[in-house]
Amino acid sequence: MLLKAPERGFELAEFEARTQKVQALMAEQHLEGLLLMSEADVRYFSGFHTLFWQSPTRPWFLFVPAAGKPIAVIPEIGAALMRQTWIEDIRTWSAPAPQDDGISLLRDLLAPLAQRNARLGILKGHETALRMPLGDWERLMQALPGLQLADATGLVQGLRMVKSAAEIEKLAHICAIGSASFDQVPAQVSQGMPLEEVFRTFRREALAQGADDLPYLVGGAGPGGYIDVISPPSRRPLQAGDVLMLDTGATWDGYFCDFDRNFAIGSADAAACRAYDVLWRATEAGLAAARPGNSCRDLFLAMQGVIAELDDQGGDIGRLGHGLGMQLTEQPSHARFDQTELQAGMVLTLEPSLCYGNSLIMVHEENIVIRPQGAELLTTRAAPELPVI
Amino acid sequence: MLLKAPERGFELAEFEARTQKVQALMAEQHLEGLLLMSEADVRYFSGFHTLFWQSPTRPWFLFVPAAGKPIAVIPEIGAALMRQTWIEDIRTWSAPAPQDDGISLLRDLLAPLAQRNARLGILKGHETALRMPLGDWERLMQALPGLQLADATGLVQGLRMVKSAAEIEKLAHICAIGSASFDQVPAQVSQGMPLEEVFRTFRREALAQGADDLPYLVGGAGPGGYIDVISPPSRRPLQAGDVLMLDTGATWDGYFCDFDRNFAIGSADAAACRAYDVLWRATEAGLAAARPGNSCRDLFLAMQGVIAELDDQGGDIGRLGHGLGMQLTEQPSHARFDQTELQAGMVLTLEPSLCYGNSLIMVHEENIVIRPQGAELLTTRAAPELPVI
Repeated sequence: MLLKAPERGFELAEFEARTQKVQALMAEQHLEGLLLMSEADVRYFSGFHTLFWQSPTRPWFLFVPAAGKPIAVIPEIGAALMRQTWIEDIRTWSAPAPQDDGISLLRDLLAPLAQRNARLGILKGHETALRMPLGDWERLMQALPGLQLADATGLVQGLRMVKSAAEIEKLAHICAIGSASFDQVPAQVSQGMPLEEVFRTFRREALAQGADDLPYLVGGAGPGGYIDVISPPSRRPLQAGDVLMLDTGATWDGYFCDFDRNFAIGSADAAACRAYDVLWRATEAGLAAARPGNSCRDLFLAMQGVIAELDDQGGDIGRLGHGLGMQLTEQPSHARFDQTELQAGMVLTLEPSLCYGNSLIMVHEENIVIRPQGAELLTTRAAPELPVI
Repeated sequence: MLLKAPERGFELAEFEARTQKVQALMAEQHLEGLLLMSEADVRYFSGFHTLFWQSPTRPWFLFVPAAGKPIAVIPEIGAALMRQTWIEDIRTWSAPAPQDDGISLLRDLLAPLAQRNARLGILKGHETALRMPLGDWERLMQALPGLQLADATGLVQGLRMVKSAAEIEKLAHICAIGSASFDQVPAQVSQGMPLEEVFRTFRREALAQGADDLPYLVGGAGPGGYIDVISPPSRRPLQAGDVLMLDTGATWDGYFCDFDRNFAIGSADAAACRAYDVLWRATEAGLAAARPGNSCRDLFLAMQGVIAELDDQGGDIGRLGHGLGMQLTEQPSHARFDQTELQAGMVLTLEPSLCYGNSLIMVHEENIVIRPQGAELLTTRAAPELPVI
């Protein structure tokens, strides 16, 4: 039943390559260090992989020096797991410690940089957050006068955007699991089933197909269509004439798929079929435009050109797809504002959406990897016509 | 098979009561507003409940004024769902918008406070994060000279610590689902099963028992015990003489259980049985001490007194339990430093742990609610002796 899985984790060479690449970029920008604190960024450079980040109690830090291996500054509870990674310099404290949750360790680590007025890269731009208490951050900065901060968001996101062969293998595996799970929906879902039960059934199937977890599952169902794309499930039973949409972010070994499928229950009305057809063809236009040298803006315009047959308002979602990897959504964005050039190795979603009828919304989504010659689907392409269950 | 579930969501009165309580506390501290941006805090005061927070792309804000309903400042994609809550004033922008992701909307909302040098409460203390780009935060503050910031972490955490009857009902339900799932482990898990498969089986069972999701599942297994408590699963098959631990944070309607269970595979050695016995009795001591008027420090000392029979080092975990609710871990902490007084309505974990043998660690965990007369278990109490599968 299970799809054959790749190996878990990465070879040492993967982390060495990531670190060398970021250090080369840091040198260009005269950064003598990089301070990381998000789950994905810490994992990307260390291999430290745990669901323990679900607990908001403790901050975790990884410092990338100008040369040499990264240094971990983490709660003692994570030391055993961090010792299994390639990281050697692991500095820990007994956390939680509200008076000093890693701050004095960070101060000692960064003091030499501050003393020579060095530049430290931090991530403070679009799609980032400060994954530590703001008050602690302010105290740390006060303790390090002379330290020059530089925004390294683009540097790190730019690196993470282009996936290695090993990353693409993991992403392809979870996309295949997602596709196999969606294949089972017509056999497992039927009229009268509460949406809550549809979600539960889909979750169990994805696990049976080999997913590690489904951190993201949203969707909707309603007569002729749905009005919202981010809701948790209601207890309303599926009815004839409904359009059902499920959007899943399942994971395998810490990498996400992110795509959705639409189904009509019993029968599909003409408006829903028309919306589906427009989105299917918009995705085709996206697939054709998704090649190295084009930009995210080009991708957006290619899809929007088709969507405009039915809806020229631009919609509520703000973009027509995004990067995909260790997070459900990553840089870049397929939007008018994003001129990021597509490169081989990028893994992306194509996610055209439109509004139709009386406040109805419809979304489509596929996951692709950019190859030198163009887009390669990681998902099994959605049916060209709205499937009826 | 499914346990009978309570109603989803909350009555309007729940949100009115939460808001009135926080506004009374704000008045005491002369706060004219409170700016919230974490998933749990936004949901607590609005009822806005979606897994869409998995995407790091967009920030979300809720402003609680000195009087009246909260005001939402959110991406347009969330407007339809927010309109289903009790919030009326919903201000949206088309996100993502890297140049202005809600910042001008927030500036306009907060400008009147800044003009009169009012105090705005924000959460910048222990167990918080800044769930927006630091650069955007800095720009917002620069645009609001005169605004006085005050740390409202304790105010909001203090309120959220004490659960309502409706919250306790949800927490009891997910704890019952967790207990029913652990009951199935001896029938479903056996020698030779890879740990990865043990995890997958447990996840599917918890969903079958009625859990919405399992955002947290960690554990370990090894000869005579495990060396780490936050790892993802390996492919190593369970072997005779292993001690297996599973620690689960399952959710129902946005509320967590968080507890673990230990099992010996085939047979249990004397050291593991002794560690288990000490932890079981430490939990008994915690249960006896968990009554209104005692502090978290008292709870810690009661458990540590028993643990010291085997391990007086204090361990790597940093505390012996914590608050539980909309997050896997919430305030307070059962630790020497935490003098929070226990109150009826608090939902807590008791989580004694110890080190034994050659770098082995063992953890126990139960979930309780504090009642006027003392602790009431929400979980089915673990067996007094290490169960052998």
